[in-house]
Amino acid sequence: MREIQDRRSIRKYSDREIDEVALGKILESARLAPSGHNRQPWHFIVVKNPERKRRIAEVAGGQTWMLTAPVFIVCVADIRARIETDEVLYIDEETPSFELKRVIRDTAVAIGHILLEATALGLGTCWVGWYLQKDIRPILDIPPDKFVLGVITVGYADEAPGQRPRKSMEEMLHRETW
Amino acid sequence: MREIQDRRSIRKYSDREIDEVALGKILESARLAPSGHNRQPWHFIVVKNPERKRRIAEVAGGQTWMLTAPVFIVCVADIRARIETDEVLYIDEETPSFELKRVIRDTAVAIGHILLEATALGLGTCWVGWYLQKDIRPILDIPPDKFVLGVITVGYADEAPGQRPRKSMEEMLHRETW
Repeated sequence: MREIQDRRSIRKYSDREIDEVALGKILESARLAPSGHNRQPWHFIVVKNPERKRRIAEVAGGQTWMLTAPVFIVCVADIRARIETDEVLYIDEETPSFELKRVIRDTAVAIGHILLEATALGLGTCWVGWYLQKDIRPILDIPPDKFVLGVITVGYADEAPGQRPRKSMEEMLHRETW
Repeated sequence: MREIQDRRSIRKYSDREIDEVALGKILESARLAPSGHNRQPWHFIVVKNPERKRRIAEVAGGQTWMLTAPVFIVCVADIRARIETDEVLYIDEETPSFELKRVIRDTAVAIGHILLEATALGLGTCWVGWYLQKDIRPILDIPPDKFVLGVITVGYADEAPGQRPRKSMEEMLHRETW
């Protein structure tokens, strides 16, 4: 697919805004992602406020390039889509739960759709994951039982990087057994 | 994107084989997936052997429909792509490691590419995750430090299911904060 070939991580964006129609198509692509038992354990927070973006970039290793993107989509995996309990839950990077792994898995696929749909629309993206749950959640009032799987910067690219190197097919492909 | 709209989980396949060119394109789409620090922490095992497929379907809840698919792609997340150690590692559903979450995340995106590229080629797929690591790994000689994230059945569909219900956009979309 062209979109898979053409997708790049874009770290420099032009001033051009994203219209709500394009943004809606991107979010719709995530809504249609497959998920285990069709639980759809994902939430998306669209962030455009400059001060909020600044605080996110700050906890994400101070990556100021992020601020050139007009929109961040903060992508959240919700373990409560798979666990019905009244118990208080606290989730972080070291939580052992299998259910957390499952909602991370499913939300990752939905984010993959976002990256490809944006590419189809001529938009650039970058998946940022360099932050701690305890630092990023308060900026967005996200409860401590949710896992922020990625902050996706979205905008029109103002750079045209080449494809990053990849392992050869031989390094990842096995036949019949490991 | 058409492929995102058209993708379905297919649980009944025709007898038609998959040629190696199509299979190569599907695997190439996974190879091009994005990953944290470009670590590409994924492996893919192409399984066609009927007896091996039978044993996989057996540990996957006895889902005999799987056997109608000519090819399984067993998708494996490898924590050693992010942890350099000579230590013996054992990974399973309850392992707390952040690095395991990261390789699951990245491998899930690569599997998402497989599902979409197959759709683009007119092939059907289903992501099967209903097994335990300890049961499925020995069938494929997979070491105990690897995590089998999914078994993807691939073949030409012999059914045409509708789109599964989805949550409304309102249920998953937030603006500025949770």
